[in-house]
Amino acid sequence: MNNKSYKVAVVGIGAVGREMVRLLLQRDFPLEELKILARRARTEKIDGREYEVVPASADAFDEIDIAFFAGTEGARGASRLYGWEAVRRGCVVIDNGDDFRMDQRVPLVIPEINADALKAHHGFIANPNCTTIVALMALAPLHRAAGIRRIVAATYQAVSGSGSAAVRELEDECRAWCNSSVHEPEVYPHPIAFNVIPRIGGEVDSGMTSEELKLRRETHKILDDTSIRVSATCVRVPVFNGHSEALNVKFIKPLTPDQARDILAQAPGVKVLDELSSESYPTPLACSGKESVLVGRIRRDDTVANGLNLFVCGDNLWKGAALNAVQIGEYLVRENLVRVP
Amino acid sequence: MNNKSYKVAVVGIGAVGREMVRLLLQRDFPLEELKILARRARTEKIDGREYEVVPASADAFDEIDIAFFAGTEGARGASRLYGWEAVRRGCVVIDNGDDFRMDQRVPLVIPEINADALKAHHGFIANPNCTTIVALMALAPLHRAAGIRRIVAATYQAVSGSGSAAVRELEDECRAWCNSSVHEPEVYPHPIAFNVIPRIGGEVDSGMTSEELKLRRETHKILDDTSIRVSATCVRVPVFNGHSEALNVKFIKPLTPDQARDILAQAPGVKVLDELSSESYPTPLACSGKESVLVGRIRRDDTVANGLNLFVCGDNLWKGAALNAVQIGEYLVRENLVRVP
Repeated sequence: MNNKSYKVAVVGIGAVGREMVRLLLQRDFPLEELKILARRARTEKIDGREYEVVPASADAFDEIDIAFFAGTEGARGASRLYGWEAVRRGCVVIDNGDDFRMDQRVPLVIPEINADALKAHHGFIANPNCTTIVALMALAPLHRAAGIRRIVAATYQAVSGSGSAAVRELEDECRAWCNSSVHEPEVYPHPIAFNVIPRIGGEVDSGMTSEELKLRRETHKILDDTSIRVSATCVRVPVFNGHSEALNVKFIKPLTPDQARDILAQAPGVKVLDELSSESYPTPLACSGKESVLVGRIRRDDTVANGLNLFVCGDNLWKGAALNAVQIGEYLVRENLVRVP
Repeated sequence: MNNKSYKVAVVGIGAVGREMVRLLLQRDFPLEELKILARRARTEKIDGREYEVVPASADAFDEIDIAFFAGTEGARGASRLYGWEAVRRGCVVIDNGDDFRMDQRVPLVIPEINADALKAHHGFIANPNCTTIVALMALAPLHRAAGIRRIVAATYQAVSGSGSAAVRELEDECRAWCNSSVHEPEVYPHPIAFNVIPRIGGEVDSGMTSEELKLRRETHKILDDTSIRVSATCVRVPVFNGHSEALNVKFIKPLTPDQARDILAQAPGVKVLDELSSESYPTPLACSGKESVLVGRIRRDDTVANGLNLFVCGDNLWKGAALNAVQIGEYLVRENLVRVP
């Protein structure tokens, strides 16, 4: 890493933006300045420290080198409003939102997997969807070894993925239950406490949801292989934080569970927890607040040639969002790529 | 139905046994007498009514026409101890436990699907596993129409499936959370509140669990077709009652989502809830305390020929256990099959 430091902005200060601030400080990102931009001026407290929140405007990006757009809740639409304008003003944008992920000008990056895509960036970089990141952290190394033909995914997604209002909704519903009362849902169309909701995102195509389509399209772009077939069912579960996914994978070449375990044990950012006899397998509680994606339940699927089943958990706010974005920023700094062409 | 009435016993009075008693009364089962047998003598209150619980013994079955073995918790092993002995003493046994499901002498029955298997019973009838019943209520009618080649299932199973101690554990963990305290798990190896546990049952074979193997073997036996390939991942979620399953199915013949919906709309014991725009899809809260299995999210899986995805929810204590057992009893009564050959 060079010794330069940078003027950094975090745009949006909900569930993801707060983790971005926290991680930039924890990981000693070379900050000359850290600005927080959002819709309205206020102060926000993060880990006991107060931050002045400045109203976002195009001009605000004139003085910024790198802007992390949190891309959720209040910040929704901010990258549409200011993203490319910020780039025009010389700021490198790392956007956690989903508005430009499929844009051909925009690299979609998980640094452990396709950091190379950053080398010729045009100033605007997209962070993949949480579900995609958690799945691909385990699947990309296996894809390199044996080639993935098809993925059938069923997800168990935490409420923090819907933002802090959804976290409060689960809290409120549980507190009401403890008091033998009922809290009417507002964020979700049905209660989420003690329930599961098999719908995430809008309806996009013949009954598929946008979340289910994202996993397919983003997998194609990140692995640069549109031949991989992806069929997903995305489901919200009453978990505060940490996305889980049951992945059924058909490979082109043979891959034994032991080979998969060896490959994943070497993979950066991945931790294998895979021993039923000692109750060792991924859980959302175990992955929450951890940098690694956990992988376990690795076993042959004998119903198909070259089939494997696995179960993955990852912190959707960290590796699934804020951490991955900060890691993109760290790569740009390390490789001296903080510049708009 | 003839006008005969029967001496009935419920063996085991945990989560499933209580629902058996409740349903036998609610559904006006032709009872001459209802006895409750369990490990130790006591009284139990169900819906405000007190029941004397008699210690189980071989002799106790001399006077019984039909015995429903609840097959969970305290009653675990009761059918191994007393099941065939009860049959020898002239009692027809309907066992919710998993000890004899694969026994060739024992029909494994979901009345809507394979009631015919009851016609030549040998006095001992097995109730399938909750996960199998909920899946097959939706899949059997589709199998008849288009032939199932392969099922990839991921489950979202409620704690009531582990018995009443597990229900109390989720309650205690949630109450502790409300009081900013922690309740150490005893039933499960990890906390279940705000968590998911991707392991149900013992390890049976190369990383598969017994619950995952049950879905395969019981599907083969009930549909009388061992060519159906079944790969499952069974996961416990913090839901009190109601099992959910994401089912990815490859058929032999083409089957459109509309055709599947039409078939399921006609299927007995099944209710289609399938309109994203009105937030209509199955949830465990919606299926709990309902007799029907709910099916929705029916959509083409375009990653494979003749593929469909669907999501099902069913009350694991009712249709997944007690109700299915009582329905088997009702069929035996209706068809005058309450006799040991």
